[in-house]
Amino acid sequence: MQIKKRKLPKTQEIKLAKAPIKTVLSQNIVTTENSDQARELYTQGRYGVMLNSGKVQLSLIETAYLAERGAVDVVSESNRKVDFEKLIKKATKLEPNFWTRYCVFKDIRNRGYIIKTALKFGADFRVYDRGVKPGEDHAKWIVYPVQEASSLTWYEFSAKNRVAHSTKKRLLIGVLDAENDVTYWEIKWTRP
Amino acid sequence: MQIKKRKLPKTQEIKLAKAPIKTVLSQNIVTTENSDQARELYTQGRYGVMLNSGKVQLSLIETAYLAERGAVDVVSESNRKVDFEKLIKKATKLEPNFWTRYCVFKDIRNRGYIIKTALKFGADFRVYDRGVKPGEDHAKWIVYPVQEASSLTWYEFSAKNRVAHSTKKRLLIGVLDAENDVTYWEIKWTRP
Amino acid sequence: MQIKKRKLPKTQEIKLAKAPIKTVLSQNIVTTENSDQARELYTQGRYGVMLNSGKVQLSLIETAYLAERGAVDVVSESNRKVDFEKLIKKATKLEPNFWTRYCVFKDIRNRGYIIKTALKFGADFRVYDRGVKPGEDHAKWIVYPVQEASSLTWYEFSAKNRVAHSTKKRLLIGVLDAENDVTYWEIKWTRP
Amino acid sequence: MQIKKRKLPKTQEIKLAKAPIKTVLSQNIVTTENSDQARELYTQGRYGVMLNSGKVQLSLIETAYLAERGAVDVVSESNRKVDFEKLIKKATKLEPNFWTRYCVFKDIRNRGYIIKTALKFGADFRVYDRGVKPGEDHAKWIVYPVQEASSLTWYEFSAKNRVAHSTKKRLLIGVLDAENDVTYWEIKWTRP
Repeated sequence: MQIKKRKLPKTQEIKLAKAPIKTVLSQNIVTTENSDQARELYTQGRYGVMLNSGKVQLSLIETAYLAERGAVDVVSESNRKVDFEKLIKKATKLEPNFWTRYCVFKDIRNRGYIIKTALKFGADFRVYDRGVKPGEDHAKWIVYPVQEASSLTWYEFSAKNRVAHSTKKRLLIGVLDAENDVTYWEIKWTRP
Repeated sequence: MQIKKRKLPKTQEIKLAKAPIKTVLSQNIVTTENSDQARELYTQGRYGVMLNSGKVQLSLIETAYLAERGAVDVVSESNRKVDFEKLIKKATKLEPNFWTRYCVFKDIRNRGYIIKTALKFGADFRVYDRGVKPGEDHAKWIVYPVQEASSLTWYEFSAKNRVAHSTKKRLLIGVLDAENDVTYWEIKWTRP
Repeated sequence: MQIKKRKLPKTQEIKLAKAPIKTVLSQNIVTTENSDQARELYTQGRYGVMLNSGKVQLSLIETAYLAERGAVDVVSESNRKVDFEKLIKKATKLEPNFWTRYCVFKDIRNRGYIIKTALKFGADFRVYDRGVKPGEDHAKWIVYPVQEASSLTWYEFSAKNRVAHSTKKRLLIGVLDAENDVTYWEIKWTRP
Repeated sequence: MQIKKRKLPKTQEIKLAKAPIKTVLSQNIVTTENSDQARELYTQGRYGVMLNSGKVQLSLIETAYLAERGAVDVVSESNRKVDFEKLIKKATKLEPNFWTRYCVFKDIRNRGYIIKTALKFGADFRVYDRGVKPGEDHAKWIVYPVQEASSLTWYEFSAKNRVAHSTKKRLLIGVLDAENDVTYWEIKWTRP
């Protein structure tokens, strides 16, 4: 769970000087406090979705990322502290591939990209180019996180490429190794 | 929780010009005031069930939907206001998957369909075709709401299909993503 | 390995009255004898590809199917008999998912359809409508064979649908159970 | 084994009007006759290596390619004719994946590229850009031919990438399907 010590682009960085934002975990939904600092999670970092209430709703993966960095504090509905480890445990119960997905999410966020769900495109994540925010332009990549010890068939490989091609995005495979490092391969169908 | 700004068919639309209908939450049951406006929830929109008392009893999901649109005001038995957020919290304690189910309910209602519980059919929801009201004709679909990062065995998949087949309804899976959007797939058992 | 005793449409049926066609297995390639009967495998049943030599090259799956029906006899390059069981063993060494894929292939062929590889479309198989031969018209379905005890994520599910949509084919999942029966589900993305 | 009817760039094309060149197969080595026409195989098409004797030594794969096109005639050391089919059989005994490798070799050659062994780089083949001949410039790709139904671990995938990266070439995977068509994917290791 080593956080990579990379320099992040200014606009992505969360001011850690401030006190952590209070958030409440309710099953697989996390809601922030109602504050300007919380809303900046969405307006600056494009975490979560903005609620009518003025709070921000975060996914488990986003919450884990922010919790590990100390940017949010998580409590249960009965106001008990949910630390990072407990959060991972809870999330893994709900989402079997959580850890693999989390590590890839974290690594990409740490490199200064905004990464969001790509369910409707047929992939785990979509990633926007540096400096681009969702809505301003299309995502550049779709990303599939896999675990190093898994294997793949060429049919699956071909399917991922077809998805990327049909959504006009580049295909990125992020392979998580046993040391929680991610190796990326960009793949493109070609007719030489 | 952004409400999608779709145009709803006239008959489905709740006249928001009117004052919100008073409702009382008691555990997981919500009862409306005794008024013509309340009864229209049932007669026009097919929300809830009509009680002998002339009041309408709403489910938590229906209440949340109406509360988010400003069509009802909810108070506790001790007459304390229960706003939308509090309602979601209470509901999630009673039904862990409430949020996923709520988002799918809302999305389908917003598209102009009447959606009701399908417990007795073995599913979460049943959905009537546009313009059809419960009692006039059979429901067209049964709907299972799931969360994007969950996973599924083929046994579970098969069970859902069996239920749909045996109740002569179409099977709809509604997958909720982290941006609260729902993607639908219609599935049918086939012997090619 | 029970062969289903379904009546096959006339045009698909291989005249079993004739003696089996001689074929030679060389690694994962099978080549038939040079005879009219062998060429009918291709011209009538659309098995394999036609070679310049006038022989037909069959895939392991096609060969296993024809061998199980007694339509071909297989020998090794050193002219030793390779019976059905041995063939399955050899094939499984080369292609880990062979048995699952084989059972789905067999079941679909038995139902009177022509089924071919769909690697370039991003799926295992493509299937032509009854009476349609490759080249005459497009395939109707893409088919993914899976094993009942495996599980799937909604991202994978979405990817399969995206592939089907972008190739303008219908999506068929064939789930193989422990009794070698295949259950099919046709899935389509929908916006209700 | 349908040869694709693509137009080849002039410089690659072998003048088929001429009589086939005589070659002798001895185990896995093929040697041409001593003639200007034979030497053109090397000087024009970069097939094989030039021997001091003035003959050209061809690999099995090159020989099969030229034999299938009618550019060479092959005889055994005892002067018996070895036709294309027999050549493939002999080659497959020596190299189990010969057919897969052959089909990819042929497809790339047919597209107008010079393709040579890459054993010393740690891959099956290296491919030069169009118009480039070995010695003039470095090869552009290394190519791994695989069979569609095989499967792959991420470790193997990573190894192929490492080889490409360390030899400063692009990585191309050529996947052969049951219809002898090859689909290509170019892969590159990336740090996004």
